[in-house]
Amino acid sequence: MALNSVDEAFVARLREVLPAAAFREVTPAYLEEPRGRWAGQAGVLVTPDCVEDVAACVRLAAEAKVPVVPYGGGTGLVGGQIAAEGPAPVLLSLERMRKVRGIWPEENVMEVEAGAILSDIHAAAEAEDRLFPLSIAAKGSARIGGMLATNAGGVNVLRYGNARDLCLGLEAVLPDGQVWHGLRRLRKDNMGYDLRDLLIGSEGTLGVITAAVLVLHPKPSGEGTALMAVPDPVAALKLLALAREHLAEGVSAFELMHRAGLEFLAETMPDVRLPFAEPPEWLVLIDIGLAKGLEPAGALEALFAEAFEGGLVSDGMVAQSEAQRAEFWEVRETIPEANRRIGSVSSHDISVPLGELPEFIARGNEAIAALGAFRVNCFGHVGDGNLHYNVFPPKGEQKEAFAGQRDEIKRAVHDLVHALGGSVSAEHGVGRLKVDDLERYGDPVKLSAMRAIKAALDPVGIMNPGAVLRGE
Amino acid sequence: MALNSVDEAFVARLREVLPAAAFREVTPAYLEEPRGRWAGQAGVLVTPDCVEDVAACVRLAAEAKVPVVPYGGGTGLVGGQIAAEGPAPVLLSLERMRKVRGIWPEENVMEVEAGAILSDIHAAAEAEDRLFPLSIAAKGSARIGGMLATNAGGVNVLRYGNARDLCLGLEAVLPDGQVWHGLRRLRKDNMGYDLRDLLIGSEGTLGVITAAVLVLHPKPSGEGTALMAVPDPVAALKLLALAREHLAEGVSAFELMHRAGLEFLAETMPDVRLPFAEPPEWLVLIDIGLAKGLEPAGALEALFAEAFEGGLVSDGMVAQSEAQRAEFWEVRETIPEANRRIGSVSSHDISVPLGELPEFIARGNEAIAALGAFRVNCFGHVGDGNLHYNVFPPKGEQKEAFAGQRDEIKRAVHDLVHALGGSVSAEHGVGRLKVDDLERYGDPVKLSAMRAIKAALDPVGIMNPGAVLRGE
Repeated sequence: MALNSVDEAFVARLREVLPAAAFREVTPAYLEEPRGRWAGQAGVLVTPDCVEDVAACVRLAAEAKVPVVPYGGGTGLVGGQIAAEGPAPVLLSLERMRKVRGIWPEENVMEVEAGAILSDIHAAAEAEDRLFPLSIAAKGSARIGGMLATNAGGVNVLRYGNARDLCLGLEAVLPDGQVWHGLRRLRKDNMGYDLRDLLIGSEGTLGVITAAVLVLHPKPSGEGTALMAVPDPVAALKLLALAREHLAEGVSAFELMHRAGLEFLAETMPDVRLPFAEPPEWLVLIDIGLAKGLEPAGALEALFAEAFEGGLVSDGMVAQSEAQRAEFWEVRETIPEANRRIGSVSSHDISVPLGELPEFIARGNEAIAALGAFRVNCFGHVGDGNLHYNVFPPKGEQKEAFAGQRDEIKRAVHDLVHALGGSVSAEHGVGRLKVDDLERYGDPVKLSAMRAIKAALDPVGIMNPGAVLRGE
Repeated sequence: MALNSVDEAFVARLREVLPAAAFREVTPAYLEEPRGRWAGQAGVLVTPDCVEDVAACVRLAAEAKVPVVPYGGGTGLVGGQIAAEGPAPVLLSLERMRKVRGIWPEENVMEVEAGAILSDIHAAAEAEDRLFPLSIAAKGSARIGGMLATNAGGVNVLRYGNARDLCLGLEAVLPDGQVWHGLRRLRKDNMGYDLRDLLIGSEGTLGVITAAVLVLHPKPSGEGTALMAVPDPVAALKLLALAREHLAEGVSAFELMHRAGLEFLAETMPDVRLPFAEPPEWLVLIDIGLAKGLEPAGALEALFAEAFEGGLVSDGMVAQSEAQRAEFWEVRETIPEANRRIGSVSSHDISVPLGELPEFIARGNEAIAALGAFRVNCFGHVGDGNLHYNVFPPKGEQKEAFAGQRDEIKRAVHDLVHALGGSVSAEHGVGRLKVDDLERYGDPVKLSAMRAIKAALDPVGIMNPGAVLRGE
């Protein structure tokens, strides 16, 4: 179905229906994405402040067969928020819908609008002595609607789940401009198909999320963080199993870092304080949150002692203060920025079955070594089987010199992931970056079901065309 | 689209393709359902032992426009497994596909076929020192495929989630007879739409689940169970909050029982040992599972002491042995059987936002009292906001005498649930029993999206016609 670019007549119709405040100038920031791969385009930028105006906008777009690209915080890493090609779309930003509509601490539930920034949601939960556990490095700009649309993951998935596990209900505008009122505060509701989970992770191709009911958790009574040096990824997995044996669900995060990441930090961000004078080859960050009466630092020391006894760890530090916990976390959370400063040739957000992780790392490194003297920085949410496996130019060289090898590198990593039963998009989504990958590695029967669902809900194909599924 | 009954020609075609062992006689058990509301019909009963034969059967049915009714353990309470009307279907039972295909204890993952019985899955997990936490009273006959198709709940949802939260991947035959190979052992996978959660809870109307990857959990190191008498539902909710403050995720189950249930037990099953000589009006069963080094009985006693101090509980017992834990649980788990023996006029599987539970119980009881001298047995998974609110005839009378009031009673309860933002099917599903309710209370935009999805994936309408969505 051929789509039309936004034109003056269309903008005039929008202006008849929406208030003047719902229009903003398209500044360059809206057309950029964090890795600078694409430049976007927009025929008009619309920023409604209520679901009715979102619905009106989508309805007009459907009538005029004009594409709609939903826009959250702009932090997505796969180009889902960027229309680089095709007819100029309506860029529909939820930035003015950022209210916390309600909070029910005794139910551990909160209702927020899609444009709420993650760190504001954290603060609102905190004010009621509750925890909203979804957390990613971009928490200061990511908006919850986009995080749900991409089923964001992050550092606490091990304990609390992905975005989809932290959402009870949605309000959304479907591609025909109708509003689905699905904001239920229910833990159990088996009345019909799971439209909520279908929209979550559909990256704006099946509708626009305008509000959500989120799951809060009681704040752990005491929290603690440790860094432990492990000889290899096998030991890291054994340490994880031991930690869960000791602490059950008390293990909130379990992150793996490679020496390369620490070296990148030292090279590009010397102000970040590194925990060991001599960086170990593999480092694990363990974060725990325990119930009343339990002492986190003591629990981490007991874990370390048993792990040391068993040869799983060679060195370690338990944070002795909140300031030190923040320091440990800063190391982990600034690695992505250090990576950006070094400049990767190719980045991969992959997951494999937990037991296959060591095999993946070993064979991945071999495959990369066969292609050149690249540096690999492999880090991430090892408790979820999710690694960011990023490939960098040799020291002293620039990524641009190796752009010609990017496809080859990506292919080698992704083929290996696929062979091990993994996913080539663990948490970032498909967006526009991985449409080819989805076609190559996705199950063909699932793909055909996805296309049928897309055609059924969005027959004109206006919602975020070119994302997830190839446009026609 | 008009469907055809199974006829001799169709059975002959099936017999050309499937082995003789895949055919069984349709005994009466296949056409009954636990509450005896409907009698089913079946043109032929097919019991394939592999996904290829399931696919072949569905393909032939699609060609011949013959309905297919998937059949698990036959324990569903909403008639999803019973075709009482319309053309005689293929009854497709998964009972011969019950293998555990693999178990990865270090990943906390298991792959099973859809016909595996829940208690066999429990045993297989136990053999590897793991826990598969999904648990319902019918665990000795319910099959995992049906439990996923209906997104079953049960007693451990509070801690471990519903069936959908315990499934990482599916293998399923879609309505055109193609096999979706989605058996991934991944905690994070954002490659495309969430087809898994769409099939889970679709009650066989979008395809047949043939196998699943399930999530296991480490077994808690120590478990404990207590019964505590609470003055009212408000106190029960406060006790729950206190328990979670003490024990965080350590609270595995939190079940509410009303005195009526204990009286029904005494009346119909005098062999079941009741815990209190004088049954309290409201009773809570708390089950906890703690990590290494923590002592469950002591933790429950500390909880009781603080709750007693605060006036939340008036009496209580902490199980002193595994045998006593089993006795406490027997009380809870035999209430449904006692209910059956008394015979309800109308049963309701409802959920409301947690904070609305006391309001629901108070106003529900008023509404029922206005309709007659009925007895109400209200019990269930209060930690999930999910109650089984069942209405019985006055003592000494039979349900049959009140059949004429059933619709009125159901309507009063369901209207109240809806007004409080609840669901009239919390965990049992829609099946054929609640198609009208879904139309009455469901969001119309969601319903129209559901119909569009159904038409897209099953254009001929062969999969479990009449369940969830009204047949044409």
